[in-house]
Amino acid sequence: MEMETKLVVHNTLSRKKEVFEPMNPPFVGMYVCGPTVYGDAHLGHARPAVTFDLVFRYLRHCGFKVRYVRNITDVGHLEHDADSGEDKIAKKARLEQIEPMEVVQYFTDRYHKNMEALNVLSPSIEPRASAHIIEQIDLIRKIWDAGLAYEVNGSVYFDVPKYNRDHHYGILSGRVVDELMTATRELEGQEEKRNPSDFALWKKAQPEHIMRWKSPWSEGFPGWHLECSVMGIRYLGDRFDIHGGGMDLLFPHHESEIAQSVAANGQSPARYWLHNNMITLNGQKMGKSLGNAVSLFDFFAGNHPLLEKPYSPMTIRFFILQAHYRSTLDFSNEALQAAEKGLKKLFAAINAIEKLPLSDKSTSSIPELRQKCYEAMNDDFNSPIAIAHLFEGVRIINSVKDKSETLTKEDSEILKMTMYDFVFEILGLKEEEAGASGKLTEGLMKTIIAVRQKARENKDFATSDMIRDRLAELSIKIKDTKDGAEWTIGD
Amino acid sequence: MEMETKLVVHNTLSRKKEVFEPMNPPFVGMYVCGPTVYGDAHLGHARPAVTFDLVFRYLRHCGFKVRYVRNITDVGHLEHDADSGEDKIAKKARLEQIEPMEVVQYFTDRYHKNMEALNVLSPSIEPRASAHIIEQIDLIRKIWDAGLAYEVNGSVYFDVPKYNRDHHYGILSGRVVDELMTATRELEGQEEKRNPSDFALWKKAQPEHIMRWKSPWSEGFPGWHLECSVMGIRYLGDRFDIHGGGMDLLFPHHESEIAQSVAANGQSPARYWLHNNMITLNGQKMGKSLGNAVSLFDFFAGNHPLLEKPYSPMTIRFFILQAHYRSTLDFSNEALQAAEKGLKKLFAAINAIEKLPLSDKSTSSIPELRQKCYEAMNDDFNSPIAIAHLFEGVRIINSVKDKSETLTKEDSEILKMTMYDFVFEILGLKEEEAGASGKLTEGLMKTIIAVRQKARENKDFATSDMIRDRLAELSIKIKDTKDGAEWTIGD
Repeated sequence: MEMETKLVVHNTLSRKKEVFEPMNPPFVGMYVCGPTVYGDAHLGHARPAVTFDLVFRYLRHCGFKVRYVRNITDVGHLEHDADSGEDKIAKKARLEQIEPMEVVQYFTDRYHKNMEALNVLSPSIEPRASAHIIEQIDLIRKIWDAGLAYEVNGSVYFDVPKYNRDHHYGILSGRVVDELMTATRELEGQEEKRNPSDFALWKKAQPEHIMRWKSPWSEGFPGWHLECSVMGIRYLGDRFDIHGGGMDLLFPHHESEIAQSVAANGQSPARYWLHNNMITLNGQKMGKSLGNAVSLFDFFAGNHPLLEKPYSPMTIRFFILQAHYRSTLDFSNEALQAAEKGLKKLFAAINAIEKLPLSDKSTSSIPELRQKCYEAMNDDFNSPIAIAHLFEGVRIINSVKDKSETLTKEDSEILKMTMYDFVFEILGLKEEEAGASGKLTEGLMKTIIAVRQKARENKDFATSDMIRDRLAELSIKIKDTKDGAEWTIGD
Repeated sequence: MEMETKLVVHNTLSRKKEVFEPMNPPFVGMYVCGPTVYGDAHLGHARPAVTFDLVFRYLRHCGFKVRYVRNITDVGHLEHDADSGEDKIAKKARLEQIEPMEVVQYFTDRYHKNMEALNVLSPSIEPRASAHIIEQIDLIRKIWDAGLAYEVNGSVYFDVPKYNRDHHYGILSGRVVDELMTATRELEGQEEKRNPSDFALWKKAQPEHIMRWKSPWSEGFPGWHLECSVMGIRYLGDRFDIHGGGMDLLFPHHESEIAQSVAANGQSPARYWLHNNMITLNGQKMGKSLGNAVSLFDFFAGNHPLLEKPYSPMTIRFFILQAHYRSTLDFSNEALQAAEKGLKKLFAAINAIEKLPLSDKSTSSIPELRQKCYEAMNDDFNSPIAIAHLFEGVRIINSVKDKSETLTKEDSEILKMTMYDFVFEILGLKEEEAGASGKLTEGLMKTIIAVRQKARENKDFATSDMIRDRLAELSIKIKDTKDGAEWTIGD
């Protein structure tokens, strides 16, 4: 049923939606730019992670065999303390020096903890830039052999205007080479470049630069755009299906990746380029340098002046999924609190599915609801529309519970399957107090509710009041309904 | 107080216990051989992980700044399907082929899940063999320049007898070169070696071999012993303090590491060599090839004919720590169930510390108990002796609770600190139902116990029986003591 409509994706390259047709079905190769691990991930980093996790999950749900590569950028620009000079450093014992890989390990572990909390699946391969220096040097050689690179003082640059004679630098971003007066993200050595639009393929390391490797040109380190070209090619082939990332990477990073692949292999690396939009704060870009980037750990702990309270990982995930990935998403406490409430409502309905009264006929068309969820996802992964349909499911569940609507056994099963497929498997949401301890809580609460019931029957109000007060201390509220007492935890 | 006795460690190199004196205090460099990630970790892999986690934790507790490097061996020997031949493979799309790094990612993620469950701390750096091919080729060059390597058909071998003329191959393991008729763990090419004791530094890849890199000698892959030499040197320097691993790695792996470092750098890489003993099953070695290796996931799930029930990660950890790391440890259901019981007893006592009645004098010497715990750990990390002293602490806690012994406020605090330091920080044990959900369970149980008390006072035995029965369904037992009702969960 899910295949009645075709999956279309918005391709940044063509600036329109296209039917998704992998080159070699059922296989799909997808490369997404991962984190730079020199600091904690903030809310802005959660968005591409959750967006492409949604894409990964949905493609798998549709039966594709996806190899999903998401890299770790660990070739960093850590430098020795400038004061200490090279000689002093050489005299220092190895263990006393900063070891970039120790920093990398620390923040990679923390990134993985964030991802696990957000229920983001591990990619199929998570390669590190530092582990692919050989391949990066090889790719520079290929670009060199194509006549599109030049060396100055041990550094190697990509000659953009020369490339642009036969190819199109700007094909992805729409930038015009003549207007590119400055290339961003360069460390130094602007004066070495023949043209301001050129970008580094290899940089000679300054004495204070710690991470360095030998190469035919100098002891140094690869240019930033090179690693993604190399790791995509290595694990997915010269040409693969999807390349994803945040919109902030579109230029110069992805534009340069295309130029590198075309120069070295004669073809653009990916067929579909998908870009998620940014998270803003009161309409402003969020970023470390802007001082308004709140780390995910701070979100989970409520540990930042911008936050009115802690927000759980699932609240953050749901907040992100409530906007389409190509729309901007504005952070506010109100929006997060609304997401939190919505999520609670969603799970309360899911937990009620099993106990719904059944009927001979249904007052709503459940197969149609299921179909609409697929249609939303097939329309460029439109999660907010899918969520709106799931909330129509919530409304139906609550109405059936209140006996204002009815469902057949079959429709009730389809509704359950739809909620499970979309909420758990595709949207990747989960109840946060789950598993063994969740079941234990449920069992204990059933005992308490039964005792309370007995106490009331015996007119033993001292006991039922004591139960109410003690549960209130644990932030648990009991509500009496026609079908017996129900309880909620939290606000 | 903890420094009254000095830390001594058993050095495999000298075959005796030596005072531990790091070369550059407070810094300590420690390298431990990590897992090969082509399958799930079994109980045998848990032992070095827990052993060196104990060493790492204790050194840090003593104030050392430890850089702990534990590698991932991901340069594997995966091969293409032999039937398909090279041509067929070349025609296959990249995505349809086995990608070794996808296998590596899968099992690395699972290994990390195991380590997290066992409460094994992340090492400071977790480098991968595949990420250090350049350095491995460089080290071969240095050995070559020293005249101790030779090439045959694109493969490079270490000349053991030639090395042995000026140095001592066998210094660690006690093996005698003349008696080394066959070197183990070689893949093929025994006929290429000049001497049976020689080992490969670089192997030319056969056509079906997937993981391969260019080198001055051939397209191939590094010998197995090389990676640890290289990663130890890279992150800890030419000479560092501790090299650890399982006893099964002593020869030829660690012996060859020493030979490589001496040949290339003129010095042995590590000062102290620590080896954990093996886990046996009815006295037999445990191993994949022996068919008696039970994976950690199977242990946690109770999912193997050898297991009578599931054993939690903390039970496994405690079972390992109950033996000294240099003793063999025999697996049995009885031993694990004893560990499980012991752990429960330990935590029950720790949870009772806060509520102990205080007195003007103490019937036991608590500072002495604390001192004995340090003495045990200072004696080559003797965790079973330390645990025995902690159980003396358990006995004291229970006696004070029963009012057959007494403690002053100060001693009660020292006892609490000792239990916390050793149980949580040094031994790395934790209660498995902890955190928010554990507190909730405790709160709900308090409510239930209070209601039960009230029911009994009112002679409402129907209610108190109902509570007993419903809790029994949840595997919760209530026991009445002089100080009120206590509850336990599980068997």
